[in-house]
This record gives sequence, C-alpha cells and structure tokens, in this order.
Amino acid sequence: MSDERFFEDVAVGESTSTGTYEMTAEEIVAFGEAYDPQPMHTDPDAATASAFGGLIASGWHTAAATMRLLVDGPLGDERIVGAAGVDELRFLEPVRPGDALSVETEVLASEPWDDARGLVRSAVTTTREDGTTVLSMVALVLYERRGEQ
Amino acid sequence: MSDERFFEDVAVGESTSTGTYEMTAEEIVAFGEAYDPQPMHTDPDAATASAFGGLIASGWHTAAATMRLLVDGPLGDERIVGAAGVDELRFLEPVRPGDALSVETEVLASEPWDDARGLVRSAVTTTREDGTTVLSMVALVLYERRGEQ
Repeated sequence: MSDERFFEDVAVGESTSTGTYEMTAEEIVAFGEAYDPQPMHTDPDAATASAFGGLIASGWHTAAATMRLLVDGPLGDERIVGAAGVDELRFLEPVRPGDALSVETEVLASEPWDDARGLVRSAVTTTREDGTTVLSMVALVLYERRGEQ
Repeated sequence: MSDERFFEDVAVGESTSTGTYEMTAEEIVAFGEAYDPQPMHTDPDAATASAFGGLIASGWHTAAATMRLLVDGPLGDERIVGAAGVDELRFLEPVRPGDALSVETEVLASEPWDDARGLVRSAVTTTREDGTTVLSMVALVLYERRGEQ
C-alpha cells in the first residue's frame, strides 16, 4: 500500500504507457454477440461484404480493452475510487482481428471533487502496433484524497 | 429492407425507448474480470467493504448493456454504418446486481458527414427500474445517406 498514489501525488503533464492487448476474431465476435450485435462485429461474411471489408471490433470493445490495459498497468498503483465519465470518446480507425493495442495517457488537469476525492482528467490514446491511433478520449477519474492524517 | 431508415429519415426531436436489460452479479464479475478488474467489480467481499457497499458494474459494462438495448431496439431498423464516437459520457449512479436497465434516446442534431454518410447526435440516458438515471451520453452515430437513386 505504501507505494500507492493519492490524488495529491498526480501531476499535470505526467504520462504513462501500457503493455499490449491482442484483439482476436473470437473475442471480437463474442463481445459483439453479447453487447453490439451488428453484422460488422458478429458475422465475418457480412463484414467482408461491407464497407469495412472484414470483421471489426465494436468501439465499446476497444474501449473495454483500453480499460483493461490501464487497470493492468498505470492505474494498478493508484488510489482510484471511481470514474465520473469520459469526454470526447472517438473511434478513429477500425480495429481488426490480430491488432495489438497499447495505450498512452497524459494528465491534463486535476481538481478537488469533494472532501474525499479528487478528479483527474487524462488524455487517453489507444494505438495499433503500426502506431495508428484507433481510439482517443479524455478520462475523468476519481482519486482518493490523502486527507489530513 | 423497405422499412429501414436512412440519414434523411431521421428528424431532430425524435425519441425512442428500449426494453430492459437485467444486470446480474455473475455478469458484472465476468465483465469486470475481463475488462475492468478492480475490486468493486470483481470481488464481492472487497466491494462490500468499500464505499460502494457492494458489487457495482464497470461503467464500460453499463455502456455496453446500453448499446445492446439500442441494437436490439431502435437501432435495429436504422441504416447504421458506424459510430464517430461519444461525448459527455457520465457514470451518474452505481449499477448493482438485479438492476433492470432501460434506455431512452432523443435526436439532438443531424448533419451530413460525407457523400455516403450523415452524422446523427442523440442524447442517450440509461435508467434503473426506479427511474434513476445511471448513465448519460451524447452518441455520434453515422447513418447511410439515401443518395440520388
């Protein structure tokens, strides 16, 4: 616990990066069938015939994979107590089977939220292995405040 | 196909609503383990000891359930060809096991995107069965344009 970072330990301009998450056809279809059953996410034949030319991941799946990379990585040592939301979420390029995603973050701003929590705004970008950004957003994450003790 | 709606058929002010989606403890934990492995989503005992007082769904899970309700409902007859993104996504209240979610949408604006597609901005709100809004966002959805033929 001693290495965990509170709101007061986060500095504007800080940046982090994550490991990689490989998007497989099997998981793209499973996520699509569960949460976004449109043909470009669930039906390889229909997807191939579409303007996308093949299966693509639901944007919500790419966002979820981004979250997983963050929790396994830089957020793992942070005193996170929730999330207020996300601004300017953009699905910039299709994500296809075999794409290996990684994430970079940069702290844009921080401000007190209430007596117990502080809000940290971070720019989040998710890229493919070729460096193309596929998703971007501004995450509004709530950190525990260190308090007086 | 004849009943499907193109970009030109969408009018500002239109509203829709969906069926319901029940969030179960099993699915909250499964989603959390896959995509957002923080204790409040994956560990009932740790969640009970937290400020949340019990398991809560990942905000990304609530967003994904919202998408599922939309695809099964009002988006099913629309000529959707992608999504540009989401603005002002907010996680307003915790979602707990047993909550039955439903979604309402209202078209805020529409504008051409390119020769083939039009962008429709819709306010999306997800509520529990008691009427409390748990998630809100502005969805930026791309529709097929009807074209000249």
